Amino acid sequence: MSRKKVILDCDPGLDDAVAILMALQASEDIELLGITTVAGNVSAEATYRNARALCALAGREDVPVLRGCTRAIMGSSVRAEHIHGADGISGTPLPASAAEEDPRHAVDFLIEQCQAADDHTITICPVGPMTNLALAMIKEPAILPKIKQVVFMGGVAFDAGNCTPAAEFNIHADPHAAQVVLQSGIDLVMMGLDVTHKAHITDERFARIHALGSEVSKAVTSMLAAYRDVIAQRSQGSREGVLHDPCTIAYVINPDLFQGRKMHVEVDTQAGPSLGRTVADGLGVSDQPANVTVMEDLDDEGLYQMITEMLGRYK
Amino acid sequence: MSRKKVILDCDPGLDDAVAILMALQASEDIELLGITTVAGNVSAEATYRNARALCALAGREDVPVLRGCTRAIMGSSVRAEHIHGADGISGTPLPASAAEEDPRHAVDFLIEQCQAADDHTITICPVGPMTNLALAMIKEPAILPKIKQVVFMGGVAFDAGNCTPAAEFNIHADPHAAQVVLQSGIDLVMMGLDVTHKAHITDERFARIHALGSEVSKAVTSMLAAYRDVIAQRSQGSREGVLHDPCTIAYVINPDLFQGRKMHVEVDTQAGPSLGRTVADGLGVSDQPANVTVMEDLDDEGLYQMITEMLGRYK
Amino acid sequence: MSRKKVILDCDPGLDDAVAILMALQASEDIELLGITTVAGNVSAEATYRNARALCALAGREDVPVLRGCTRAIMGSSVRAEHIHGADGISGTPLPASAAEEDPRHAVDFLIEQCQAADDHTITICPVGPMTNLALAMIKEPAILPKIKQVVFMGGVAFDAGNCTPAAEFNIHADPHAAQVVLQSGIDLVMMGLDVTHKAHITDERFARIHALGSEVSKAVTSMLAAYRDVIAQRSQGSREGVLHDPCTIAYVINPDLFQGRKMHVEVDTQAGPSLGRTVADGLGVSDQPANVTVMEDLDDEGLYQMITEMLGRYK
Amino acid sequence: MSRKKVILDCDPGLDDAVAILMALQASEDIELLGITTVAGNVSAEATYRNARALCALAGREDVPVLRGCTRAIMGSSVRAEHIHGADGISGTPLPASAAEEDPRHAVDFLIEQCQAADDHTITICPVGPMTNLALAMIKEPAILPKIKQVVFMGGVAFDAGNCTPAAEFNIHADPHAAQVVLQSGIDLVMMGLDVTHKAHITDERFARIHALGSEVSKAVTSMLAAYRDVIAQRSQGSREGVLHDPCTIAYVINPDLFQGRKMHVEVDTQAGPSLGRTVADGLGVSDQPANVTVMEDLDDEGLYQMITEMLGRYK
Repeated sequence: MSRKKVILDCDPGLDDAVAILMALQASEDIELLGITTVAGNVSAEATYRNARALCALAGREDVPVLRGCTRAIMGSSVRAEHIHGADGISGTPLPASAAEEDPRHAVDFLIEQCQAADDHTITICPVGPMTNLALAMIKEPAILPKIKQVVFMGGVAFDAGNCTPAAEFNIHADPHAAQVVLQSGIDLVMMGLDVTHKAHITDERFARIHALGSEVSKAVTSMLAAYRDVIAQRSQGSREGVLHDPCTIAYVINPDLFQGRKMHVEVDTQAGPSLGRTVADGLGVSDQPANVTVMEDLDDEGLYQMITEMLGRYK
Repeated sequence: MSRKKVILDCDPGLDDAVAILMALQASEDIELLGITTVAGNVSAEATYRNARALCALAGREDVPVLRGCTRAIMGSSVRAEHIHGADGISGTPLPASAAEEDPRHAVDFLIEQCQAADDHTITICPVGPMTNLALAMIKEPAILPKIKQVVFMGGVAFDAGNCTPAAEFNIHADPHAAQVVLQSGIDLVMMGLDVTHKAHITDERFARIHALGSEVSKAVTSMLAAYRDVIAQRSQGSREGVLHDPCTIAYVINPDLFQGRKMHVEVDTQAGPSLGRTVADGLGVSDQPANVTVMEDLDDEGLYQMITEMLGRYK
Repeated sequence: MSRKKVILDCDPGLDDAVAILMALQASEDIELLGITTVAGNVSAEATYRNARALCALAGREDVPVLRGCTRAIMGSSVRAEHIHGADGISGTPLPASAAEEDPRHAVDFLIEQCQAADDHTITICPVGPMTNLALAMIKEPAILPKIKQVVFMGGVAFDAGNCTPAAEFNIHADPHAAQVVLQSGIDLVMMGLDVTHKAHITDERFARIHALGSEVSKAVTSMLAAYRDVIAQRSQGSREGVLHDPCTIAYVINPDLFQGRKMHVEVDTQAGPSLGRTVADGLGVSDQPANVTVMEDLDDEGLYQMITEMLGRYK
Repeated sequence: MSRKKVILDCDPGLDDAVAILMALQASEDIELLGITTVAGNVSAEATYRNARALCALAGREDVPVLRGCTRAIMGSSVRAEHIHGADGISGTPLPASAAEEDPRHAVDFLIEQCQAADDHTITICPVGPMTNLALAMIKEPAILPKIKQVVFMGGVAFDAGNCTPAAEFNIHADPHAAQVVLQSGIDLVMMGLDVTHKAHITDERFARIHALGSEVSKAVTSMLAAYRDVIAQRSQGSREGVLHDPCTIAYVINPDLFQGRKMHVEVDTQAGPSLGRTVADGLGVSDQPANVTVMEDLDDEGLYQMITEMLGRYK
């Protein structure tokens, strides 16, 4: 079977970093067309710099990295620096990129890649606010038939929000962008908190990644250690941290790791307590068509075996 | 320990009927001050007639039954006749009440009973739209200190809605009333779909109630059979039906049957996809104070033992 | 022609005071059934005290004065003490009422008066937040056919708000109550800022009231002077003040003083910049039926002649 | 004084056509950098075709005409074909454009022109939904300092809406885009219905344009005649039609024709009756800074003299 053409749209970010490092080593399964960056966990400037640095760390500066939107559609600039550090990587030392900067805008890169592709061939993995993809869809709706699938990390269907009581961070950071994507009619896979909150970074799993011993392993465990410390502090020591964003790349490589159901989902864009909620019709009470496959369960041990194996390819 | 003074505020309704019949036989634990009725599952006229008929069936026409609001605060008149039948009791024959009608309005009855009581002594169990209680609180806020606890069936914190994708029926039928109650500062226990969807009417449990053999048993099993048929049809045979409303009376009698957590909950009253959602801060991400004990689990076998035992008191 | 049966529902308040004093001297045209009070410009306690004191000043303690709601439906307690003073009458000395307090609640008084009346015979003039009337309509919808007309001061159809950019004070203070009334199907006359902002208290008009020389004249000019000072301060001296609330009583006595058009009006109850806006279909672009006569112009000199003449009846 | 660099962003549309023909003949005052088109009154395809045809009619195919967005940010596709005809020009015959199509997207054209310009030198005149400008601002916020002023036709501050009771068509067609522009911090001039409804196409004014006798005059009077017929039908013959969009170009040429006040304006983007309302703080009751000069009055005779004079330059 042929490789999937993938664009990873991200805001690194600690767990984004793992997703990027996986995508850069998945060449058997994934043809990585490019990495687009967006303001989200930290500023657009920082996410762009981090994505480039991670490519440098991975020795993959051949992959295009594109600057994207610096703000949400309606102007919000919610950040998660309390989780990811002001630099987005909790101070983890990464090599500076030596590659020339690509002058293209992430929005235009998404459009160009789609326009150059056959129908239903492009897989897009947004793991931050979906501003870039939404703008591409608004500016050039003709790209829609080119997209095979959008596998996004974001939202929460049946659980509590982690940004507000109702909303997950990525969606809350640009609810309008998310709703543009959810209304697009494209095949959508939602990796929300319902499933990512089950991808625990246990001590044992952390130790396995640490044991890899490579430069990549050092960087990743530096980031994960910082992340787990933050989570532990915020939860009075009760949570071990989970890996959200890598679930999307893992799904692209092996969808059988995940289980979900297709249902209608829309983003609440009204001011009020539910702003940014991904309202999911779990009991099928509305007559609106199912538009999103909401992931609810995963083979978490299988996920971490994949992550460890892929990170292990870095020597 | 002394008995709890309870007002049951209901819209019978099939599962309301079981709650009423339990409350009328719980005299060891509950001093039932009265039953107030409200438009909800069916019209206010029908819920009033049904509550009176159930008291007649139980031989308890000494208990005051009061007519309440015929509409929601903002005028909505959502009904659930597709579940409960046009009469609210799926055509189950019940004796006509011979008692004189009480001329008092449910709102005023709630106020009077509170005004006549000591502080923190009245337990109110709304199992329909909370219009009556909300109006009482708006009209006479001085009743608030008299209320010990409000144990309501309604809402859904971490699951899908059964009326809209976001909302449970009782809350959606009068979201503004629910929000008035949730903002009141009173001790609140929420029996939402999170827990009531676990109170399955299995075949075996149904058979036990049926085996009681009394007139009450006949009426209840007639209603439950009709209810299970509706649920089975709507779910392509996959659901056995659950008893929502009796959970509130069961909690008043034995709170140990239920497990929950206290957190901030508010009702979304904005037009939009989340209208009527009980937005619950499950991860403690807001700084708003916990105001509701959200029930999440129950001893379902214990619940049905209680129900069967209490219905078995009817000879 | 027979006198109109009127209930004045108010939150005195400086301009409310003039409306009350007019209503108490309008016995040729108005049978004043009672004065109901509500929290609004100042607290419910203060508005009740002021209404009683104004009856004492007028020598009309025979008129029932009823305590009403102390909060808005959704709990807001917006006040206008910066306009009316903490006491609602800017420190104007008024006689203490010697009358026994009426124990009835304003909501129940509204219901009782309607229930006792023939169809289409009761005129209600709300000049504060419409909480009392809305609660009466929710609690007892059977009163609706008894109401001839509701003439309310509140809202703004085509002009800027005075409380928020979109909303007039009375509506903003309880938008849900206002929408209950606007949806009621009753004959409605809206005295909004569109027209009341044209009822200028010019120096000459002030002087005429002052020249009356009675105790009532002294109290009224004390209040109007304080009011004009506040308005002048807030507007850098450019506004003379207007009399909002008396327009309703003037309309009941002589509707020919006012001109308006019937159109669809609804209250925006969504959180957001338009909360409390009375959205009026001035160009007839919706297909919703006209439900409100929106007053747009008045004979302001005729209004002040009426006010002066009626206040002049006090000796 | 130097000429203003202007981009006209439009959805022709009958009154857009007059604005375009004015802008193409205003070379003493305006350096017309380009005409960007957008879906609005009619589809994006039709507005693009009409803009090109009007340039052909004017003999000005040197001016770049750019295709823009085909949908609103949140996906709405409100149209005004009942006013402008399915083709947007009520069947008026126009020459087909012989110019090569410019491949650039309107959004990118706006960005490029700004990036190439000195600070505070670009004037943008949106006379349709503001989707193009909003997308440019979201995609490339660095353009903001380059913009001198945005003079837009749209909204209504103190009057009724013409699309919904609360909203004017251009804003209602993309309220989110409008709010992006209003929040941008740029110098904004709002030509809303408050002022454009005073720009009456009287019989006499129509006759003057008709008397010009040129091909352009024929096309314009064909369009205006059709427009006035529609308006007359919809208003039962009582309205003569007004010219909305030309007010923006007239303002750029001679701002003294218009009078307005600066105040805070925001667009209501909430679902509900006020969606798309330009909420204007006319009385200065909020503490939000004034961001828009809201035009309220105009020298209508001066406007029509300018229009007639400029259209008269076409021979």
